[in-house]
Amino acid sequence: MTNNSKYYPHLSVDCVLIGYEDDQLKVLLIERADVVSNEKYNDKKLPGRLIYMDEDLDEAAVSVLKEYTGIENAYLKQFKCFGSPGRTSNPKDVRWLENAVNLQIGRLVTVAYMSIVKIGARSNRIDSDYKADWISLKELPDLAFDHNQIISEAIAEVKKLIENDPMILADLLPAKFTALQLRKLYEQIYNKDLDVRNFHKKIKSMKYIVELDEREENVPHRAARYYKFDKKKI
Amino acid sequence: MTNNSKYYPHLSVDCVLIGYEDDQLKVLLIERADVVSNEKYNDKKLPGRLIYMDEDLDEAAVSVLKEYTGIENAYLKQFKCFGSPGRTSNPKDVRWLENAVNLQIGRLVTVAYMSIVKIGARSNRIDSDYKADWISLKELPDLAFDHNQIISEAIAEVKKLIENDPMILADLLPAKFTALQLRKLYEQIYNKDLDVRNFHKKIKSMKYIVELDEREENVPHRAARYYKFDKKKI
Repeated sequence: MTNNSKYYPHLSVDCVLIGYEDDQLKVLLIERADVVSNEKYNDKKLPGRLIYMDEDLDEAAVSVLKEYTGIENAYLKQFKCFGSPGRTSNPKDVRWLENAVNLQIGRLVTVAYMSIVKIGARSNRIDSDYKADWISLKELPDLAFDHNQIISEAIAEVKKLIENDPMILADLLPAKFTALQLRKLYEQIYNKDLDVRNFHKKIKSMKYIVELDEREENVPHRAARYYKFDKKKI
Repeated sequence: MTNNSKYYPHLSVDCVLIGYEDDQLKVLLIERADVVSNEKYNDKKLPGRLIYMDEDLDEAAVSVLKEYTGIENAYLKQFKCFGSPGRTSNPKDVRWLENAVNLQIGRLVTVAYMSIVKIGARSNRIDSDYKADWISLKELPDLAFDHNQIISEAIAEVKKLIENDPMILADLLPAKFTALQLRKLYEQIYNKDLDVRNFHKKIKSMKYIVELDEREENVPHRAARYYKFDKKKI
């Protein structure tokens, strides 16, 4: 029996954790440090790692989420396996991973998970050991491997999830929110500007969004009305 | 640099090809032959194989589909990666695979694809070399690895696809079909009996299903009306 390495891809999980903060849709990224030609450089990647031989894929993803955010019970959705041989075409990525895991890496296939995370909730303080940061989708740098593509497919998945279950929006917004906040969230998810008037009509048509009698306080502009989600009306 | 085998899962693709024939929802299965204690046995598995080191996952799935059915341009959807360590808990499965590929197999992760296939279309004669058969979902035997579970998750995926795009049903039925044929298809996809009267009302509410002026001919019962899908009305 041969041990022909052409049949030996390495397998990882990567987690796209999506949150909303300061009117920005953000994703959690980890700093990656390496040295090239005696010069140190830093760039960023998704939280993830190779799976262990005795570990279920879902278990691995859950443990990555917990490791980086402290969150234990979030819903993590496996949304796609990324396995193009071109994933390891950048020698920088391969060298970094080979140093990190002390293994020769040929092919690297990753199973991508996503989760909607409340940024700043007491349960998810980011462990500073990892130099992890919430980065706005609008300001994503060039990431390791195909992680830009993975994030963009995760956002497409969020759109599909919201169409089937709009309550996912509630996980991104504060308990009460203004029409402006909701519109900005939509604009980022759908990556386009929305007409203010049409959007107000849209809100009125969403039976699961309830107008409150409350308005903003101490704001330098006309105080906007607050809304909330009504789970019973979904 | 070590070559620690705990980081070496093997990776395969498996294809769930779903078709409809003789009022039965069917899936394409391949015969697997092996010898245990000098006794030959046969059982069945999904079409699939290990991926090659230089091959994209989608490419591997497309080549499996082509190999077994001759189909070149079908829509294949990657729907889930199955990676439980328990997938290789049956020594029979491991021994068969090790013989087939001449490799030691520890962990086996598979990326599952699905496709709706017109059974009997001229382009998809099954190559008899493979002893492949369309087997009714109602008569599925115990399959290799976790292939029963993979099929059941593929059917759940078909339900979701149909909810978003009912034209998928058109790929399963003949160009013109009776209400009975459509109901039997629904009953199998949703795995429950449907009330005949309510189902007729449901058909009337489906704007993309058009009543034809044609009826069955030469049948021993009252000739049923034919219907067809109208792609323009989706």
